[in-house]
Amino acid sequence: MELRIERSRAPGTRSAVPVYQQIAGQIRERVESGILAQGDRLPPIRDLAGDLGVNRDTVALAYEALAAEGVVESRVGRGTFVRGLRPRGTGPSGPIELQFSAVAERLLDYDHSRPQFGVPSDTIPLHSLVPDSSMFPVEAFRRALNRAFADVGASLLAYGGPQGFAGLREVLADRFRGFGVMVGPDSVVLSSGASQGISLAMRLFAESGDAVAIEAPTYHNALATMIGLDLKVAPVPMRRTGPDLDALDRQLSRPEVKAFYTIPTFHNPMGISTSVAHRRDLLAIAKRHGKPVIEDAYEMDLRFAGHPIPPLAAIDESGLVVQLTSFSKSLFPGVRAGALVARGRAVDALLVLKHATDLGGTLPLQAALADFVRSGAYDRHLAALRKRLRRRRDAMIETLEDEMPEGVTWTTPEGGYQIWLELPEPLDSQDLHAEAMRAGVLFAPGYQFHHDGRPSGGLRLTIALADETAIRRGVVTLARLVRERLVAGTASARVASVHM
Amino acid sequence: MELRIERSRAPGTRSAVPVYQQIAGQIRERVESGILAQGDRLPPIRDLAGDLGVNRDTVALAYEALAAEGVVESRVGRGTFVRGLRPRGTGPSGPIELQFSAVAERLLDYDHSRPQFGVPSDTIPLHSLVPDSSMFPVEAFRRALNRAFADVGASLLAYGGPQGFAGLREVLADRFRGFGVMVGPDSVVLSSGASQGISLAMRLFAESGDAVAIEAPTYHNALATMIGLDLKVAPVPMRRTGPDLDALDRQLSRPEVKAFYTIPTFHNPMGISTSVAHRRDLLAIAKRHGKPVIEDAYEMDLRFAGHPIPPLAAIDESGLVVQLTSFSKSLFPGVRAGALVARGRAVDALLVLKHATDLGGTLPLQAALADFVRSGAYDRHLAALRKRLRRRRDAMIETLEDEMPEGVTWTTPEGGYQIWLELPEPLDSQDLHAEAMRAGVLFAPGYQFHHDGRPSGGLRLTIALADETAIRRGVVTLARLVRERLVAGTASARVASVHM
Repeated sequence: MELRIERSRAPGTRSAVPVYQQIAGQIRERVESGILAQGDRLPPIRDLAGDLGVNRDTVALAYEALAAEGVVESRVGRGTFVRGLRPRGTGPSGPIELQFSAVAERLLDYDHSRPQFGVPSDTIPLHSLVPDSSMFPVEAFRRALNRAFADVGASLLAYGGPQGFAGLREVLADRFRGFGVMVGPDSVVLSSGASQGISLAMRLFAESGDAVAIEAPTYHNALATMIGLDLKVAPVPMRRTGPDLDALDRQLSRPEVKAFYTIPTFHNPMGISTSVAHRRDLLAIAKRHGKPVIEDAYEMDLRFAGHPIPPLAAIDESGLVVQLTSFSKSLFPGVRAGALVARGRAVDALLVLKHATDLGGTLPLQAALADFVRSGAYDRHLAALRKRLRRRRDAMIETLEDEMPEGVTWTTPEGGYQIWLELPEPLDSQDLHAEAMRAGVLFAPGYQFHHDGRPSGGLRLTIALADETAIRRGVVTLARLVRERLVAGTASARVASVHM
Repeated sequence: MELRIERSRAPGTRSAVPVYQQIAGQIRERVESGILAQGDRLPPIRDLAGDLGVNRDTVALAYEALAAEGVVESRVGRGTFVRGLRPRGTGPSGPIELQFSAVAERLLDYDHSRPQFGVPSDTIPLHSLVPDSSMFPVEAFRRALNRAFADVGASLLAYGGPQGFAGLREVLADRFRGFGVMVGPDSVVLSSGASQGISLAMRLFAESGDAVAIEAPTYHNALATMIGLDLKVAPVPMRRTGPDLDALDRQLSRPEVKAFYTIPTFHNPMGISTSVAHRRDLLAIAKRHGKPVIEDAYEMDLRFAGHPIPPLAAIDESGLVVQLTSFSKSLFPGVRAGALVARGRAVDALLVLKHATDLGGTLPLQAALADFVRSGAYDRHLAALRKRLRRRRDAMIETLEDEMPEGVTWTTPEGGYQIWLELPEPLDSQDLHAEAMRAGVLFAPGYQFHHDGRPSGGLRLTIALADETAIRRGVVTLARLVRERLVAGTASARVASVHM
């Protein structure tokens, strides 16, 4: 179903029908014709407003008009639903509409609000943080998997327990010690990627109704995890030097804030790493409040420039830090291999949480990964990947410097996949996103990294999937679009269309 | 640390010191000597009472006496902690005690309350529901894994999305249709075992503070899952014919009860399957209340006797049922492969919940499993496994009939691994458990299948790990112990010892 909105902002002209009436009218038609049936949910106001490029109030006005007519109804915390006359199903023996938990409904809403990237395959992908499968050492991993079967045998297919395959925990403890985090394999809990690690660490300290302090902007899937756990967000604004420490101090002083989730190294989406001094100050604040820090080190193996900075977990003397990492970005996501490092009773608590979630992870892949790392194949892969990322980053930074107009700023990461770019006022990256998509370039608009989806001049560019040539072409196109927008002021399309 | 309690129930004799004072005195000594330090938690009252074989009130009295002296303190919902004078750590720069969520603390407590089976390896394992690894078709699965790598290539190691590998969903939809559940692959969501399936299905309908109706007794890990989700338990007593439908009706009439979790086929721990008529009545009740039913079909492939009974999902005309299953018992748990089947928007909601939990499962194992099932290897394995289980069940039932004294009753399952046995009043299966362990036989005492850990005359015997000879020997031993207890009345040990 497609809504078509006609409008004009040029002075002295106006379309015949106010925009909110256009929207309401088209939805009404679809209910009358049966395209929308009783119980169907209308898109969230924010979504429809974003897609149509209109103000949220306009869409809200349309929905209110329809509600006043009895065509739709609002349900608190769930959205707007079609009332209509024709019930779904086949009478009394037909399907019953089940009521989902409010958390599930909020996750559905959140999912609808994510940007859509459904575009032709020749588009330049500067939006994605998924590693390039053409670099996956598939054959070496397959051999490691076969060796694991030969070495371990049938017990590889038994329950492995919540902590995970001991051999992989040993390998990971070795690597953590290489970063200065002095732990043994008993302090390591394997997780299904960093994603499950975030969820387990948050559940260790916070539960329904509690708040967790997060960086703003931050990793968008961490926001989804928090919605799923019914946790409130206590935002700490990001500066170019890292999270604002005064704001962190204020947030941690609130009793309902139970922990701080932070990405100090190769921050997602900003690409920056904080200094050792910043890290020490951050830990001192956390310690003063007696609040734990969840350190997301998901790209810790991807430094390609500069000097190593010890992770928070390495300089933490008070046992405040639970650190998590992942192989999803440095190797491949398909193994769903991540790990948490904690101390003392926190390990026990993570284990019961993991056990109550899915009993434990998959031993065959954990054992294969241990073998793969031990064989040296992982370090060889990392060396090649870092070289490639370094070249791509250089290509992107050079082109940004050559092409972007004054007022546009960006970060220069020393590792990982992502670069953060900020457009000058009053440009909004979500508007640019739609336009860039039409011009064949994808990036991640900044709003999705904010818990409240606020308009943002920031956007994330990545070097995961595009090679140097594509990166240069993509940045040239983006720079042209930015220059045009700066010249034109706030541009507006005559006709916006949206599927709902 | 070991507590030693001396007591006597023989009339006319008494130990010099009341039992509660003995307990309190020995804990006080350990605090004074520094074996227990500030912040250490004492064992939950229930645990210590169970381990010492004393009344819970006795332990509570001991803890209260210590609290009155200022040696320990109670923290609401967390337990009893040592106060003492010597803080842990090394002064102001030492570790800080982090506060965990109440949910994590409750999970830790629950974990402590589980029975311990740390015994010599020559013990007869009639307690475990873990399949026998000597039957795992390891080599056939390894070959399937290699074929999957050859067929699918690098994308096997990419993110697979929350729904899981399409090929395995097709295979599962085929099998579901074989049970009369008319679904396609789009209605299937892969999960990390049945365990994650239970968690996702519960979260679909219920959240912190809500209640879910469950069978009493039920699968103990479902209870842990509910603690982890902060869900309340609405118990529905199990009869020999299935859950009591009047009680179900009453529970579902309560607004805070959001769903019913049930195991209609080869119930865990009871081993029974409900009739088609019972299933229809159950669905009619759920429909009248408009409440969903979560059908756990984790052993659906393990019928070895009797006639197939359609699952609830097959006779559900109202879209009330979310069904889940697993390969953990029918093949091996190491693949962590389970699946949910749902309809309409419930699928979308399960997908966002799965995504917010761990992004998705492991494609390589899912693809290998699809190949393994398609090749016919799974059905060949099932045929052999069912034959073996049939022989073992027959051996157990015959020996029970030959050996058990009057008053002991048991179920006769037509599939799966577990048989439920009930001791006559006033015998408690937890007492028998400790004694049987010393005599070299393990079983699962009934209390752990009840959310409130209530004393139970029931116990679960399984045919997963012991062969026919061991089963006969184990049942003979158990029967002897039961007869002795019936003769002696309530037996009591003179000295009980416990590590804490």
